[in-house]
Amino acid sequence: MIRVTFLGTSGAVPTVERAPSALYLNREGDEFLFDCGEGTQRQMMRFGTGFGFSHLFVTHLHGDHVLGIPGLIQSLDFNDRDAPLAIHGPPGSKRHLTELVHAAGHDPTFPVTVREARPGSVVLDCEEYEIRTFETEHRTSSVGYALVEDDRKGRFDREKAEEELGIPPGPAYGRLHEGQAVELDDGRVIEPERVVGQPRPGRRVVYTGDTRPVDATVEAAEDADLLVHDATFLDEDGGRARETAHSTAVEAAQIAGRAGAKRLALTHLSSRYAGRARRLEREAAGAFDGEVWYPDDGDEIRVPFPDSEE
Amino acid sequence: MIRVTFLGTSGAVPTVERAPSALYLNREGDEFLFDCGEGTQRQMMRFGTGFGFSHLFVTHLHGDHVLGIPGLIQSLDFNDRDAPLAIHGPPGSKRHLTELVHAAGHDPTFPVTVREARPGSVVLDCEEYEIRTFETEHRTSSVGYALVEDDRKGRFDREKAEEELGIPPGPAYGRLHEGQAVELDDGRVIEPERVVGQPRPGRRVVYTGDTRPVDATVEAAEDADLLVHDATFLDEDGGRARETAHSTAVEAAQIAGRAGAKRLALTHLSSRYAGRARRLEREAAGAFDGEVWYPDDGDEIRVPFPDSEE
Repeated sequence: MIRVTFLGTSGAVPTVERAPSALYLNREGDEFLFDCGEGTQRQMMRFGTGFGFSHLFVTHLHGDHVLGIPGLIQSLDFNDRDAPLAIHGPPGSKRHLTELVHAAGHDPTFPVTVREARPGSVVLDCEEYEIRTFETEHRTSSVGYALVEDDRKGRFDREKAEEELGIPPGPAYGRLHEGQAVELDDGRVIEPERVVGQPRPGRRVVYTGDTRPVDATVEAAEDADLLVHDATFLDEDGGRARETAHSTAVEAAQIAGRAGAKRLALTHLSSRYAGRARRLEREAAGAFDGEVWYPDDGDEIRVPFPDSEE
Repeated sequence: MIRVTFLGTSGAVPTVERAPSALYLNREGDEFLFDCGEGTQRQMMRFGTGFGFSHLFVTHLHGDHVLGIPGLIQSLDFNDRDAPLAIHGPPGSKRHLTELVHAAGHDPTFPVTVREARPGSVVLDCEEYEIRTFETEHRTSSVGYALVEDDRKGRFDREKAEEELGIPPGPAYGRLHEGQAVELDDGRVIEPERVVGQPRPGRRVVYTGDTRPVDATVEAAEDADLLVHDATFLDEDGGRARETAHSTAVEAAQIAGRAGAKRLALTHLSSRYAGRARRLEREAAGAFDGEVWYPDDGDEIRVPFPDSEE
């Protein structure tokens, strides 16, 4: 299961209800934090994500996306963290991110590395998935992040293997599922295609951070299971969105539609609309056929495999 | 009225219930912030103090006392603050405090000054009160702050003036209250002592920040109406208090007792005692005759004049 927890959904100025930007993602036990606005550590406590994240992915250096880093590092250190932490940021961010790591006035005793990632690169390459950056547009060096799973093997049709083809259960099943042909004791050779379905697409979760609507997001979010997109403004304030290099809810919806995303979560609500998130939600719903909503702080969304029965 | 709002009462590591250190003080409309841990700006919103403070007094540079500064400055700026802000810190703090002012990545458009204050100096001198620093002991450069009001004029006994002495109401009353003798039309000279009582002591509110129990606090908090003192640890963890240069609740109570303070608010609760503040309260109550309690975040205390009827 992929579980995404919205830790902070406010715009640049927080409100009583919404903290600045932060998103926690747990993929089958691998944990990641995306952005870390002021107060993120308490949001993590409040919403029970735990502190087991190994990577922090920063979209850009504006205060409302990074000012929670020093306090979080300090508390991890006070709590005797040993595990390394890798912090990733856009081009040019290394010096400032490194300063933030040490801004609490002491050096953490666990290993912290800071890396810059160009847009369009793979920043984390795991066995079953990778995390990639993509280009965004926000009047400062910035990137978005996409978690993209590898295709999974096709389904193994056990019933057909056992009953129709009479293949005795055992190691042959595993080899077939891996794509190898097997020769049975009776001399028959079974090609894997006979019992294994087409590869199934992995899941894709995409987080833009702050950005204008851009083609690179459409590409990164192609068929995404979840797109989390900047939606700072109402349509009527589209001029303000352009000036400040943010997106309206409608623009976010259009990007999601072009990408063929299944679900769209809006975020970075301007404090001028405090308490009126439903209105941005409705505007987006009018421009996007998939599921769309404006999460509150603490909301959690689960992203199962498309063919999962969960 | 002096109104003190406890914005953050946690130790170095916050909890779901308690944010890091910050205290808001409103004296007859003059507003001050003492320390500014991460998340202070949202605590100010949540507990309705407003953002009208003109001075920020920092006790020391540990992260849990200063990491809310960059985000607060950024939000004040986004909200078009014009009024100047003066930030005061202990010796050697100017460079780091200045960095924190700019750590959100941009320069505020309202004037911000940063000043260092030696222990035992007056950092703010107003017509009716002053704010002084005093020496504390916390393994780093640190000071505590005391708001000390001037003595007020004695009470004017209007009944005696009018009925017993037959002084006609008018400007003579004001001059007598100011301490001047007046000559009446009938030739009598009235000395002010006959109708004006003894000067009445002003109020005193003292905040230590993090510290070991020290004599300088006893002196600063002499007859204080409210002493807010570090009480990070239970008595059984006194060794840990010494190692980390904090105080136990009992030590805080002993200081309050020696100072003759009327009320003692304990603060900086170690996260190891989350949910057990009442126990520290009881320990302190056993060592101090005045009123003592462990405020929760958002608690507010009013400090009227001792002779007020409010």
